[in-house]
Amino acid sequence: MRVTVLTGGVGGAKLALGLTSLLGGEQVTAIVNTGDDFTHLGLAVSPDIDTLLYTLSGKANAAQGWGREGESWNFMAAVRSLGGEDWFQLGDGDLALHVLRSARLRAGDGLGAIIADFAAAWEIEAAILPMSEDPVRTMLVTDEGELDFQHYFVARRCQPLVHRIAFAGAAQARPGPGVLEAIGDTETSAILIAPSNPFLSVDPILAVPGIRDALQSAAAPVVAVSPLVGGQAVKGPTAKLMAELGLEVTVEAVARHYGDVIDGMLVDERDPPAELAVASARADTMMRTLDDRIRVAQAALDLAATVR
Amino acid sequence: MRVTVLTGGVGGAKLALGLTSLLGGEQVTAIVNTGDDFTHLGLAVSPDIDTLLYTLSGKANAAQGWGREGESWNFMAAVRSLGGEDWFQLGDGDLALHVLRSARLRAGDGLGAIIADFAAAWEIEAAILPMSEDPVRTMLVTDEGELDFQHYFVARRCQPLVHRIAFAGAAQARPGPGVLEAIGDTETSAILIAPSNPFLSVDPILAVPGIRDALQSAAAPVVAVSPLVGGQAVKGPTAKLMAELGLEVTVEAVARHYGDVIDGMLVDERDPPAELAVASARADTMMRTLDDRIRVAQAALDLAATVR
Repeated sequence: MRVTVLTGGVGGAKLALGLTSLLGGEQVTAIVNTGDDFTHLGLAVSPDIDTLLYTLSGKANAAQGWGREGESWNFMAAVRSLGGEDWFQLGDGDLALHVLRSARLRAGDGLGAIIADFAAAWEIEAAILPMSEDPVRTMLVTDEGELDFQHYFVARRCQPLVHRIAFAGAAQARPGPGVLEAIGDTETSAILIAPSNPFLSVDPILAVPGIRDALQSAAAPVVAVSPLVGGQAVKGPTAKLMAELGLEVTVEAVARHYGDVIDGMLVDERDPPAELAVASARADTMMRTLDDRIRVAQAALDLAATVR
Repeated sequence: MRVTVLTGGVGGAKLALGLTSLLGGEQVTAIVNTGDDFTHLGLAVSPDIDTLLYTLSGKANAAQGWGREGESWNFMAAVRSLGGEDWFQLGDGDLALHVLRSARLRAGDGLGAIIADFAAAWEIEAAILPMSEDPVRTMLVTDEGELDFQHYFVARRCQPLVHRIAFAGAAQARPGPGVLEAIGDTETSAILIAPSNPFLSVDPILAVPGIRDALQSAAAPVVAVSPLVGGQAVKGPTAKLMAELGLEVTVEAVARHYGDVIDGMLVDERDPPAELAVASARADTMMRTLDDRIRVAQAALDLAATVR
């Protein structure tokens, strides 16, 4: 049973791990947001892709929610001593991904091939596909002016009021290698949208020309896992952002946002009953343990089976 | 009393530290070999300059002879796990110099200004000047073919037989900012050539057009500290290299090699008495402790005073 999942970082990586545990990695393809990617200290950083790499290879720092388990920070200390920028933390081990990726990108290799090699080196069987190899940058128009994602999310800790979100470069971007094939594949039983931030992590993927159309015409059902748990975001600024964008913080609003891209939505059992235009099912969608992740993956696939 | 010293890495950095301890850092200018510089994993590495930075800021790993005290190696472990090149060791803290230098070079800053900023951040008062900001690469023609310095020195541990040494790019290189001024400065009391490898660390500096002429016409006396101690190199391939290049491993041969660039040579007291064409003095030139370094610096300056 082949499954494709559209995902951002932490929450999405948890669902991806549930899927690979349930089905085997070779059955899973993750199409990953690159709208948060940026160049920092001259290094190409791909936060969501790297979270997938760490999570699916068992190297993720589960307590922290990002980065590597057992990370050390001597690089950052030295950067600070030299007066370098230190608002974005790059761990010593984490740097290997950024340095090797940057060197290969400069040598002309594509991000997809680079990530495939990293995944193979770490014995990850799932396919981790950048949504695009062309630069797409999530930009937030805020009460403090226009901020790129990392300056909004890390440097300003999601404090600014968001008026509007844009995906710079998206109009010119092409889907990454394998992306449209993974969506259109007739062997694929389900396409899931992970419980990542719909506006910051999933919308950039949908903004790449061709991906939305491919989802709408896919043979496989598209099922979103709601990012809300009891009307709250589990982590991150989803609820705050929805309010600032003038949306109700409800499952209905998320479903309306995805519109006809989705055929179903898995809703957390803590949320109030919702009237949705698509098929839905309810489950405990909190993913604290590996068993939770497998359970949520199974519930999403069960829903997909009913709308197939 | 102002002093300028031409230097490679480890041995030269010891003499530079002796000079700054003796005179105060603001009186010392180091003109540093960049022939060993190379790009590794996409990062601009300047081994000799960095050894000066570490040594003069008290961060050098004295026992190891290179790199930082208290270094950690999580980056290299992660690079290895990803199948990246691991023959050249980059420590976690050390990476800060390479990453920040690379980013600033790409942004168009000159190496001299970058190193001056690093030195200021680490409260180094001595001036650390790249011999050139243009690429000069020390190449060794060996029985295993042509090798760049790092592949000869690190990857092949100086094992190949050396037929010839060349400095690629030297003919087109210009002296780095401040280099000719430091040599020609009429306030300078002495110009020292550190006990670095004459063929691999000093010759690249002399190969930059304008530097040899400036030394020959300098108002200040030029005194070399012999790299030999009892007919042996203290560290590194000097003696092996001299034999392979058909030279006797003697102080006379070193003095002849420097020719009319030098006005005097400080010789280790363990070496047999030498007949030199230039003034000379004898001293214990082994530099194990800081006191040793100060003593050797003083002996070299004393010799310079006699030939002024």
